[in-house]
Amino acid sequence: MRTLRLTIAYDGTNYAGWQRQLNAMAIQQIVEEAFAHLTGGVAPTMSGAGRTDAGVHAQGQVASVNVEFEHSALSVQRALNMRLPADIRILDVAEMSAGFHARFQATGKSYRYRMVTTSVMSPFDRHFAWHVPWPLDVAAMRQAATLLVGTHDFASFQATGTTITETTRTLEQLSVTDVGGQLLIDATGDGFLRHMVRILAGTLMEVGTGHRSVDSMPAILAAERRDAAGKTAPPQGLTLMSVRY
Amino acid sequence: MRTLRLTIAYDGTNYAGWQRQLNAMAIQQIVEEAFAHLTGGVAPTMSGAGRTDAGVHAQGQVASVNVEFEHSALSVQRALNMRLPADIRILDVAEMSAGFHARFQATGKSYRYRMVTTSVMSPFDRHFAWHVPWPLDVAAMRQAATLLVGTHDFASFQATGTTITETTRTLEQLSVTDVGGQLLIDATGDGFLRHMVRILAGTLMEVGTGHRSVDSMPAILAAERRDAAGKTAPPQGLTLMSVRY
Repeated sequence: MRTLRLTIAYDGTNYAGWQRQLNAMAIQQIVEEAFAHLTGGVAPTMSGAGRTDAGVHAQGQVASVNVEFEHSALSVQRALNMRLPADIRILDVAEMSAGFHARFQATGKSYRYRMVTTSVMSPFDRHFAWHVPWPLDVAAMRQAATLLVGTHDFASFQATGTTITETTRTLEQLSVTDVGGQLLIDATGDGFLRHMVRILAGTLMEVGTGHRSVDSMPAILAAERRDAAGKTAPPQGLTLMSVRY
Repeated sequence: MRTLRLTIAYDGTNYAGWQRQLNAMAIQQIVEEAFAHLTGGVAPTMSGAGRTDAGVHAQGQVASVNVEFEHSALSVQRALNMRLPADIRILDVAEMSAGFHARFQATGKSYRYRMVTTSVMSPFDRHFAWHVPWPLDVAAMRQAATLLVGTHDFASFQATGTTITETTRTLEQLSVTDVGGQLLIDATGDGFLRHMVRILAGTLMEVGTGHRSVDSMPAILAAERRDAAGKTAPPQGLTLMSVRY
């Protein structure tokens, strides 16, 4: 048996997210079904490093899959890209040692959240950013971000209804970059809770508008309650940039 | 009566082009119908500077329209953007002196054609570039472009079936810029024939692959026949960047 690592980019606009679901089209399913043509009709089960939500994008999602066939990594990449729709692309296929698992062995992930701050949002950004056409205090957003970096219990930054109870994570980087008409929020950490980056982005936006103070960040963390943090920023602004091993 | 100038950006992916048509949805029609809510239900006729084809995009299309109402330019912009789908945005509305006409008074236009040259095309580029994953001699493409700049009869670079017979145009700029994985072809001129930028891009691509020589450019111009030039590059790579007055 061989283990392959796939690096995948996708425009998540038209999908129900990464993870296979019963009643909606997920990216995992599309890739697995493309694989079935290489495995004699049986779709193998892939493991993805990050379960991106509906509408969320990826520049560097990573998935692992165990296969029996002998096609080279390059021919697997080419065959999959021939089958896949153009909004899902296999950027790389690599041979891994047995036992590699894209999710369990990931040691970190990087996400980018984009906000468009101009009064009119370019039509080319509509699926890839959150339109925030209000005056924002970017310096305050940066200060608040600094207070969230580190090892904390991020329970306040987890979607309600989640069953995960171990909610301590290390947020290694949370930066706010003003590139002129757009704010890029880059988050890197050892792991992220469900909706965590989007709640971080929504909370920082509320700091930017002055609805929350910079000083309130420690209290939000200490509350360990979802309603202590800001709103969940919409999915289309979020991109999974890379996964670290 | 007042004359307004609209500057419009659109993602042309889902439209049959700028110009109103009988059996397909054109951008002109969508904007005119959004206008009807400001003009008591009657859609005014707009004049667009450039008749972009199906799938072609605009960063700075310009249209003029004559209206009787008294809404300010800013409130017209806001009302239209409220009504319009997110893939069409009014970037600016300006009050013009009577008689301004977006098409007749345009003195120049700038277009950009994008090619993606990496072996795999990013899903985010799929509607906005031509995938050209072959080795290209960019220096040769640049030399060929230089030979096409100037005042020439561009009949060889006009779509067949066009009724326009005055085919002399001045191409002021035709540059090829390698930005790493992408080639940007920027064309500025006093006017462009139907498909002209796309045929220029297709011809330069064939120079890049070595299927045409740099030296053949003067002969292509002299032939004044469509079949003397290269193929028409696909529409999704093309964007109308700006119109000059």
